[in-house]
Amino acid sequence: MGAGSHAFDINKIRKGQRSPMADSVAIEEPLEIRLGFNTPEGRASKSISITMRTPGNDAELAAGFLYTEAIITSASDILSIEACGPPAPDSGNHNVVRVELQGNVEVDLGRLQRHFYTTSSCGVCGKASLDALRITGRDALDNDTVFSEAQLVAIPGKLRAAQQTFEETGGLHAAAVFSAAGQIVASMEDIGRHNAVDKVIGRLLLDNQLPAPHLGMMVSGRASFELMQKTLVAGIPLLAAVSAPSSLAVQLAREFNMTLIGFLRGETFNVYSGDERICP
Amino acid sequence: MGAGSHAFDINKIRKGQRSPMADSVAIEEPLEIRLGFNTPEGRASKSISITMRTPGNDAELAAGFLYTEAIITSASDILSIEACGPPAPDSGNHNVVRVELQGNVEVDLGRLQRHFYTTSSCGVCGKASLDALRITGRDALDNDTVFSEAQLVAIPGKLRAAQQTFEETGGLHAAAVFSAAGQIVASMEDIGRHNAVDKVIGRLLLDNQLPAPHLGMMVSGRASFELMQKTLVAGIPLLAAVSAPSSLAVQLAREFNMTLIGFLRGETFNVYSGDERICP
Repeated sequence: MGAGSHAFDINKIRKGQRSPMADSVAIEEPLEIRLGFNTPEGRASKSISITMRTPGNDAELAAGFLYTEAIITSASDILSIEACGPPAPDSGNHNVVRVELQGNVEVDLGRLQRHFYTTSSCGVCGKASLDALRITGRDALDNDTVFSEAQLVAIPGKLRAAQQTFEETGGLHAAAVFSAAGQIVASMEDIGRHNAVDKVIGRLLLDNQLPAPHLGMMVSGRASFELMQKTLVAGIPLLAAVSAPSSLAVQLAREFNMTLIGFLRGETFNVYSGDERICP
Repeated sequence: MGAGSHAFDINKIRKGQRSPMADSVAIEEPLEIRLGFNTPEGRASKSISITMRTPGNDAELAAGFLYTEAIITSASDILSIEACGPPAPDSGNHNVVRVELQGNVEVDLGRLQRHFYTTSSCGVCGKASLDALRITGRDALDNDTVFSEAQLVAIPGKLRAAQQTFEETGGLHAAAVFSAAGQIVASMEDIGRHNAVDKVIGRLLLDNQLPAPHLGMMVSGRASFELMQKTLVAGIPLLAAVSAPSSLAVQLAREFNMTLIGFLRGETFNVYSGDERICP
């Protein structure tokens, strides 16, 4: 059994028959991210996020979260990342990760509350969400990288092969980045899609691989605005999803010249934006 | 086309062939919930949440969110719910909903930040998450309602029949409450599972049907801690999911004597907790 799953005794019921069995379930536990940073008054420490996640690769998750939320802009902003606190009594996991930033990093925690802009003209709307991204300095991406259709349709199979805990539990999302040559560069699993994407981006960040204009991102579920936004912040020009995209994901992709692929299954996929990056 | 979807011109790609087509995509837009309430200094108004949601049933979403977050405890706490602000320029939707509370309602907004408790002994852990629920006064549920196996296996088909926008877009989650006799009492769709559940619970609240110890909840995706928590707060003793549960959802269900069903497909399902509520 993988580290991301736990066995429970359950009953399977079918046509009046109860069959007792052990079932592997994906682990969900809270992770608190604490940030240490300099202020004019001296060193400060602040809890900035509690997210439900599957334990494992917590350092990548914290690094990726800080990067995609634009709290940090490179791996060199990070002094250290450490699990802290005693192990949780029910699981033995360390569920707090402390990230110490370099003394010269200016931290704008208000950013965490300013994802969406309210204006007098529209209240809050999709356009304001896209404008907020532009204000953080994200520009439309270039077209230098091209992905072949044959490589793209092979990615879901490679992603499934890398999804060890999903095979056992059916309960985890996966994310992976891959090269134009079709090679999986990093893949991660988590009960939350956004966490799986943050873990992948965090791995790239810690390897000094960001921004990553030559990679594509693949996710196991649907493509939401949030996943598209994280992919954009990492400078990755393509997001492919096994399932459907949302309207705001399509709008974001078109606004920032990204490629968005949905329903990537079998030998078929839909291109919602950035068709020019797909070659035969 | 349903109100929850928008058509985009896309290319479907298969074996080197590009087929232009129009594709219906589920709408995702931000909704801001503003709360009006009395303070010792007079009437106050505060923005308490911005969530990405599919427009429609925003009053139910706001009411359900306030109830499952324990900001309000009954429909009589609400003076009015109104869409406000001008329509968004890109969609025409009103993306702000204002909830005015009765003057006698004491509002504890700190609760929104206190979902998880940090203790010196465990940092933050699953046990602390369960303890936090107990502190809000939620007790284990009674066993008075029994659901038949035959009625349960019929629910997914009834839920799919009610999912109009999913049929078009493949991009929405659904939630429904049903009676022990197998009748769907309310069903809602949303791009977010938690929103679909909040909309259903909000509908019950506005109809003065909460707590609802005689109903079961069905969701189209996985069963997470958050969905289990919302179901518990509504006093609904059973949650059934088409896909897998998480470990913390199983722990919550067992701790509070709830029935948790996963992989409800075809004629089979798994019972992770509360088997005694299932009869042949």
